[in-house]
Amino acid sequence: MTPKELRAKIAKGEFARPTAGECPGYIQMNMVALPRQYAEGFEAFAKANSKAIPVLEILKEGHHTEILADRADLLTEIPKYNILREGVLVETVTDITPYYTPDLVFFLIGCSFSFETALIENGMPLRHVDMQKNVAMYNTNVRLTPVAGFEGEMVVSMRPIKREKVADAYEVTGHFPQMHGSPIHSGTPETIGIGDIDRPDYGDPIEIKEGEVPLFWPCGVTPQNVITKMKLPFAITHAPGHMFVTDRKDSEYYE
Amino acid sequence: MTPKELRAKIAKGEFARPTAGECPGYIQMNMVALPRQYAEGFEAFAKANSKAIPVLEILKEGHHTEILADRADLLTEIPKYNILREGVLVETVTDITPYYTPDLVFFLIGCSFSFETALIENGMPLRHVDMQKNVAMYNTNVRLTPVAGFEGEMVVSMRPIKREKVADAYEVTGHFPQMHGSPIHSGTPETIGIGDIDRPDYGDPIEIKEGEVPLFWPCGVTPQNVITKMKLPFAITHAPGHMFVTDRKDSEYYE
Repeated sequence: MTPKELRAKIAKGEFARPTAGECPGYIQMNMVALPRQYAEGFEAFAKANSKAIPVLEILKEGHHTEILADRADLLTEIPKYNILREGVLVETVTDITPYYTPDLVFFLIGCSFSFETALIENGMPLRHVDMQKNVAMYNTNVRLTPVAGFEGEMVVSMRPIKREKVADAYEVTGHFPQMHGSPIHSGTPETIGIGDIDRPDYGDPIEIKEGEVPLFWPCGVTPQNVITKMKLPFAITHAPGHMFVTDRKDSEYYE
Repeated sequence: MTPKELRAKIAKGEFARPTAGECPGYIQMNMVALPRQYAEGFEAFAKANSKAIPVLEILKEGHHTEILADRADLLTEIPKYNILREGVLVETVTDITPYYTPDLVFFLIGCSFSFETALIENGMPLRHVDMQKNVAMYNTNVRLTPVAGFEGEMVVSMRPIKREKVADAYEVTGHFPQMHGSPIHSGTPETIGIGDIDRPDYGDPIEIKEGEVPLFWPCGVTPQNVITKMKLPFAITHAPGHMFVTDRKDSEYYE
């Protein structure tokens, strides 16, 4: 299935699952839509925290992409959306047409799913992909640089990697600086404020087997955590793991 | 010595050495100045190759910085400059005032010297710093993404790291995505087109001892290599290893 075909199925309501492992070799994106008055501040905040919030496209007018896909509709072509009011998740939906106003500005943000094909091709199979589960994601105590009233802590995704492949995992993912790049931590979840590795804050629990090390990458769910803590009056985001699948190949973002 | 004091010495012609190890904890920058007609193309090229050419400040008017230091003068406050005509290095100077015209646009580009303090503080001593030498830099066969007529291969810096610390080196430097981030390669120089590790193309040869692995980071000398290959009519750059030392702390760029 091409990304365009997958997005067509999503728009028709025929695919509302996590997108990890779908359309291998194509990059996937996090989405955040904010009222215009917050857009400039968020853009500056993202710039100061580019490892957690790498912005690849901003839609200041309308809801159709230009860079990452040829006029994909962000109102319907993401499998699941979260609606947040005053920082509270009030609804999870598959179509945000009823919520759209021209006052919304859309941000598309790099996602670590984009480098998973490269990890797999370099001899690092991924358990959540093999098991068709969502990746495990956690809130942390890693403080972001505060800008323009935006502040909070980083959310991370976790992948167990064989001990002898850890340096390889850092290298391979470091080649994708616009998709979070290399991990921010490996080994001890408690160091970054994760209390119980078996209970992720988002996504599915993923087993860590003997001889494996948990690696933690910055995650594009970070803005949702920030918006929640800030109690922003209104925001729409993708639902964790349910990404915008683009027409752009991961090789275009390999640096 | 504060960065401001060091830059004052440089401006007076009292310091014309490599800046590795100077003003620990402050970030250092590569510099490229181009005629205005090439500036937009170079900016797009840098964006597509952000790991090798992370642009942190552009001076479209004049020659005084605003973001990285409070009105430092780029004509005199860098220890050494290269003057390139038709891609050929015609002169190395300590003051570019005679070459300045308002047609020049200045780019300041992240430099791996900026994360060296973090490596040292995390138990990875650096031989070139200990020996007060320049870092070893090499041309490679790693192709950059061509944009707007700009194309060429990446230049890398090399640091030997103890085998058991390799993953740590990837992690620590990955926290500085705007200073090239994690290495692009480790272990085998020939894989990235380096023929003789004992003969760097820029800087000083640095010994690799038993039990150490050579790690290769993208280097801000990359644009010089590109400009040389393109035979650009005119350009001014810093001389490799002789960086612009800023007033900004490395902790501000830790992500």
